[in-house]
Amino acid sequence: MIPLPPGSTLGILGGGQLGRMLALAAARLGFDVVILEPEPDCPAARVSAHVITTPYEDREGLTELARRADVVTFEFENVPARALEILAELGVETAPCARALATAQDRVAEKTFLNAAGVPTVAFAEADTPEGARQAAEQIGFPCLMKTRRDGYDGKGQSWVEHLANAEAVFHALGNRPVIVEAPAAFVRELSVIAARGRTGDVAIYPLGENHHEGGVLRRTLAPATVSEAVEEQAERIATRILTGLDYVGVIGIELFELADGQLLVNEIAPRVHNTGHWTQDGCDVDQFEQHVRAIAGWPLGPTHAHAQIEMENLLGDDISDWAKLGAESGTRLHVYGKRKAKAGRKMGHANRRMPD
Amino acid sequence: MIPLPPGSTLGILGGGQLGRMLALAAARLGFDVVILEPEPDCPAARVSAHVITTPYEDREGLTELARRADVVTFEFENVPARALEILAELGVETAPCARALATAQDRVAEKTFLNAAGVPTVAFAEADTPEGARQAAEQIGFPCLMKTRRDGYDGKGQSWVEHLANAEAVFHALGNRPVIVEAPAAFVRELSVIAARGRTGDVAIYPLGENHHEGGVLRRTLAPATVSEAVEEQAERIATRILTGLDYVGVIGIELFELADGQLLVNEIAPRVHNTGHWTQDGCDVDQFEQHVRAIAGWPLGPTHAHAQIEMENLLGDDISDWAKLGAESGTRLHVYGKRKAKAGRKMGHANRRMPD
Repeated sequence: MIPLPPGSTLGILGGGQLGRMLALAAARLGFDVVILEPEPDCPAARVSAHVITTPYEDREGLTELARRADVVTFEFENVPARALEILAELGVETAPCARALATAQDRVAEKTFLNAAGVPTVAFAEADTPEGARQAAEQIGFPCLMKTRRDGYDGKGQSWVEHLANAEAVFHALGNRPVIVEAPAAFVRELSVIAARGRTGDVAIYPLGENHHEGGVLRRTLAPATVSEAVEEQAERIATRILTGLDYVGVIGIELFELADGQLLVNEIAPRVHNTGHWTQDGCDVDQFEQHVRAIAGWPLGPTHAHAQIEMENLLGDDISDWAKLGAESGTRLHVYGKRKAKAGRKMGHANRRMPD
Repeated sequence: MIPLPPGSTLGILGGGQLGRMLALAAARLGFDVVILEPEPDCPAARVSAHVITTPYEDREGLTELARRADVVTFEFENVPARALEILAELGVETAPCARALATAQDRVAEKTFLNAAGVPTVAFAEADTPEGARQAAEQIGFPCLMKTRRDGYDGKGQSWVEHLANAEAVFHALGNRPVIVEAPAAFVRELSVIAARGRTGDVAIYPLGENHHEGGVLRRTLAPATVSEAVEEQAERIATRILTGLDYVGVIGIELFELADGQLLVNEIAPRVHNTGHWTQDGCDVDQFEQHVRAIAGWPLGPTHAHAQIEMENLLGDDISDWAKLGAESGTRLHVYGKRKAKAGRKMGHANRRMPD
């Protein structure tokens, strides 16, 4: 039954912080949540009605998930495609759909889709062999960026290639796996747009965020970003094309490069709620987590207007030990993920600071 | 260890909607929550890390609660005093303290405390017998309001006495239990103030709410209420006296009558988060639920400034079937409690509407 009434159960593959914040948003609307996650005692488990602790592709686990959940979603893009196939066999719907996930999982499929949808990206070439990697690098020019086609995140699984002579070595260093070779983007700024599409094809787009990375990991997002009208319009056009082209249901995160002339290129898409959208929790009436719940449950999408200017700061590793100081800051809302150990660089929480009007 | 770091566990006696919203707020700050509640499948259980399903006074249940929780609080004022005694024996701290709970549980103790603290109330008298009830009513005058000393809520356990001849009949109708007889308040408006006191004695007071009841049950709160500076100052003085007088830790709800001359009387106090404070979820940076968590965990209290004007509407019984319409309202945030059955008059959720600036 769509729209799903309160009291229905949402299934989530993955129990990290994104699953946790989805579960909290779902609970606010009266939904129950069931998590499937291989790791015991995961952050989302502790705020959800049911937890299934099995590998993602475990048929028994997925069968229980399918039995409990009215719709299943995922909190990260590296869910094995096989898990979604099994869920489809079991007759439970997943949102976003398997195709959207498959497209986002493979950097070549992603950029091919984007370009076909009229969405600009950097130039790219693909390779499966050392010799192919050499040729691809030569085709793109130097320096270029070589990335594994799959399983990369937060700057992992990628490396610069400075000279033709390095191409094969980088291919080996990346694990002799299929790669994509990308031209560098001469960007002046990294932006992102968080958008959602509902089951009736309606689209809702949040204001852009301006992102600052350190060591490949997001450090902070300022939102709404100060952008020209032309940039805003491009971002909306890009988001709409992507969502429509993938027949997408749910929230998507779209990372963008802003070039000196104001053109936007898409860096990558994440078929899920996104770290650069955490500012919406304290800047918008309906945040990205509730928006995703609304979309997959077939509810009308909520407004995306920002009622405050927010600086979102990721709390990585030991940053979290500043909780007492952050908790005492007026205008700061602290979000802590409940992870047991603060390993170096690990995303432990974030702080949303309301900026003066 | 105070302040309690994220990762600590908060215990809550009671698993209704207030426990649920406390649990959600606690999770956002990285706390785990353990609920003790006699009813299985309660609203708070489904968003908490641990659930203990035993009567409130069950020693085994309380022992498990004490073992898991770093501090214990409660979500309603009719928790048996015996439960807090057992927890004290087990060496776990409760906040608010047992004395605050005991004061709020007994309407005579409550008003006696208030008056002693310099906080005005209506005139009142107590009685334990039919003849005593007659005398008390005569002393107060007619019409007067007879209430059971204990266990009343949402207009239950109380009745008007119009004439001396009715006094004994009303006493019987209320169950032949100890009663309080109160003079009617000639109020022009019902207001409430939500306030908090931290472990270091710091006090934080939210702007006043204006409350509208139907059939003894809260229907809506408008906040911040439009009040004179004198009323605001009285409310702050009252809240501070009560919190200090009870050596209180946590959030308290204080129901007020505003008289025609601008004087405030306290109607009753609730030693917990309060229905008339739900507007803070969408009107303030730190809402009453997070504020209570901060107070009992020994964190600094958060700001109480309202950044929006909110109309909070309770969704009672079948009102909740309007979820689709409410979900489509721009500027409305829906909060649904996850109760399985929408019995008539039951609090199923609430909607916070952001009013135009």
